[in-house]
Amino acid sequence: MYDRIKGFRDFYPEEMGSRRAVTDAVEETVRSYGFREIGTPALEPTEMYVDKSGEEIVDELYSFSDKGGREVALTPELTPTVARMVVAKQQELSKPIKWFSTRPFWRYEEPQQGRYREFYQTNVDIFGSSDPAADAEILAVAADALTNLGLAADDFDFRVSHRDILGGLLESFDADVDVRAAIRAVDKSAKLSAAEYHDLLVQAGLSDAQADEFVDLLSVPEDELGDLVDFAGTDRVEDAVTNLQNVLDAADDFGVREYCSLSLETARGLDYYTGVVFECFDSTGEVSRAVFGGGRYDDLIESFGGQPTPAVGVAPGHATLGLLLQRAGVWPEETLTTDYYVLQVGDTRSVAARIARDLRERGHVVESDVAGRSFGAQLDYADSIGAETVVIVGERDLENDEVTLKDMASGEQVQVDVDAFPGDHDSPTFDDFAE
Amino acid sequence: MYDRIKGFRDFYPEEMGSRRAVTDAVEETVRSYGFREIGTPALEPTEMYVDKSGEEIVDELYSFSDKGGREVALTPELTPTVARMVVAKQQELSKPIKWFSTRPFWRYEEPQQGRYREFYQTNVDIFGSSDPAADAEILAVAADALTNLGLAADDFDFRVSHRDILGGLLESFDADVDVRAAIRAVDKSAKLSAAEYHDLLVQAGLSDAQADEFVDLLSVPEDELGDLVDFAGTDRVEDAVTNLQNVLDAADDFGVREYCSLSLETARGLDYYTGVVFECFDSTGEVSRAVFGGGRYDDLIESFGGQPTPAVGVAPGHATLGLLLQRAGVWPEETLTTDYYVLQVGDTRSVAARIARDLRERGHVVESDVAGRSFGAQLDYADSIGAETVVIVGERDLENDEVTLKDMASGEQVQVDVDAFPGDHDSPTFDDFAE
Repeated sequence: MYDRIKGFRDFYPEEMGSRRAVTDAVEETVRSYGFREIGTPALEPTEMYVDKSGEEIVDELYSFSDKGGREVALTPELTPTVARMVVAKQQELSKPIKWFSTRPFWRYEEPQQGRYREFYQTNVDIFGSSDPAADAEILAVAADALTNLGLAADDFDFRVSHRDILGGLLESFDADVDVRAAIRAVDKSAKLSAAEYHDLLVQAGLSDAQADEFVDLLSVPEDELGDLVDFAGTDRVEDAVTNLQNVLDAADDFGVREYCSLSLETARGLDYYTGVVFECFDSTGEVSRAVFGGGRYDDLIESFGGQPTPAVGVAPGHATLGLLLQRAGVWPEETLTTDYYVLQVGDTRSVAARIARDLRERGHVVESDVAGRSFGAQLDYADSIGAETVVIVGERDLENDEVTLKDMASGEQVQVDVDAFPGDHDSPTFDDFAE
Repeated sequence: MYDRIKGFRDFYPEEMGSRRAVTDAVEETVRSYGFREIGTPALEPTEMYVDKSGEEIVDELYSFSDKGGREVALTPELTPTVARMVVAKQQELSKPIKWFSTRPFWRYEEPQQGRYREFYQTNVDIFGSSDPAADAEILAVAADALTNLGLAADDFDFRVSHRDILGGLLESFDADVDVRAAIRAVDKSAKLSAAEYHDLLVQAGLSDAQADEFVDLLSVPEDELGDLVDFAGTDRVEDAVTNLQNVLDAADDFGVREYCSLSLETARGLDYYTGVVFECFDSTGEVSRAVFGGGRYDDLIESFGGQPTPAVGVAPGHATLGLLLQRAGVWPEETLTTDYYVLQVGDTRSVAARIARDLRERGHVVESDVAGRSFGAQLDYADSIGAETVVIVGERDLENDEVTLKDMASGEQVQVDVDAFPGDHDSPTFDDFAE
């Protein structure tokens, strides 16, 4: 009768179980690095996004006037919100600040594979350190999250770049270059033909020859980064190359260098990045777009009215991450599991309830009948929820002070003294009671 | 520079940690009963709420037209959404359907203590059973969630009522009663003076004498519920009284009868309730409003275009639940904890990183320096994050192949062979290495 809104999703239990397993695994890794969970509003003042990204952003926002006349927007990303929170308590917070959260965001965009109007991300950020170790810790926590999910080194690739190398090279040309426009062209280049890419660079102010040279420069191998320094002859490029190398060295110390490759063609779309940026790609190319990305944004806190505060972060998006996990065959199985179903035959609810309660207190997931169903209907239901063991509490069995334990995989069953069940067993199974 | 929106909250790590502990405990209890997590959209068609509650509801909604001209609303509650989801997959879902989820909702209301414009609830529902055991299981899972959080029987009280007793009594009067208006008066009665309450009942169609009689009837003790049946002389009231007694009997079987008391003055505000309803109150009265509530709503699925499907649910709100936990002194402590801080002195990052990684792989929360801080600054930071053990990795110690293990509570420290750390210890502490 009512339709779900386009670009939004319902998650039924089977799929939700897999999503929860993935979120839990990502968050467990993030917590192990000492990142702390925060909670944030779904609505923020629209101007927070307009000031940062220009009026055009409004076209992509779910924005409106609330009943009190405030211009508000459903948050399209977390970074402005955490910047606001850092500024609000700047003096009290001990640095470095290491925060994470998993939650939905909203953008009014055309839905496509792996992209929805409501989408989930785990944002992970460090504020208050410009040290290359901070950039490397962001790479490390992201890589560890992926390997802890079952991905291997040949499944994914972190393409690492540096905004100041891109910007420094562009400003070293003898031309009036719109650096923002040129970096946006680099960011889009993988989706463009060589000619289209070239044209965008020329539109940004480079000559034909300069555009060709710039594209060539971006493909230098890692051991020839010095060539870029020589070409530009500026401190900015030299510092950026040194910084990038230091970050990769720190990633080596952190045990995640093998997941990283140099890729100056990677730029990240958002304007606020200032240093190292990176994107995670599916090594097989089957997931055609970046799975997620991150990078350094040292100017944002100051632009929000705070003390100058360096920052670096990453935000795995769960839709594209799911595509990668599925491609690699490590998406968690979408099935329901249940430890025990306590089946009632006749008026045995009080005994069944006592057994169910005992088993729950031992930490198990236990269902029992709450619908007055027949033996067969209960057994079918127990099967549908993946119950491992069914405890059959029947009126006749109870006359002999017994219940029946049924192993659902084998179908075998055994009579058990009701007073001895669950007894001393933490996880009683058929095998514990079979002769 | 930017202000948070009124009625919305930021949660910094200390408070968020406590909220997370509470949410996890509630969800663990709910899962142990076999409820399955679902995921649901933040936006729904506005008409879904208007059809159900009338045009007035729009004043309380965050509703707007999206860029595609759809009339949408930030979801003010979950029940219509889960009803929509049940209807959408009615044939495939095996019954009873037992779902839960924790997420924010939004209402444009005046913020006050324990009430915000953005608020979190854990919704727990059973679809497909009209058996009293289903109502009782909802009472049981709610009570167990509270006791698992550390609350005791004298901390809270479930006031249980029945919509059909209220409605049946009202229609048994020889008067043209607006039952909805009268039930709303009952729902508000605790906040009204006796005279105001009386007036509202008279406005709903009762005479002065009938209003007095009705108020008297609602205060019958449990063992005199039969008086209501005698008074009304209708099957509706008789069935309702029997149903209420059966639900309380089932709650007894489920071990939660002691948390429930009869309270016909409890009505629940929402119109869609049809049978047993209940509200949880702070026994001391310090939390003056209902902590949360729930009940049976057997007609909603059909009104959403589905097959007739009985339903019963409960939705603990985390703001008022937090007030109750704080009042009872069982709100989780708002402090950060960290298992290990690996402190670097000089250029020891690679060894420190190896130790941090080893400890993380053993399941611990481990931080190390990512900001190039001094010894003192790192020790202060380790203290600020509640580190239990600090592993000091110093250049000079490393010349002797040693690191230093410092217990932060006692301040004691011991030198440890770097190759033997963490060695075979799953959770190495000062005590493991002290002579």
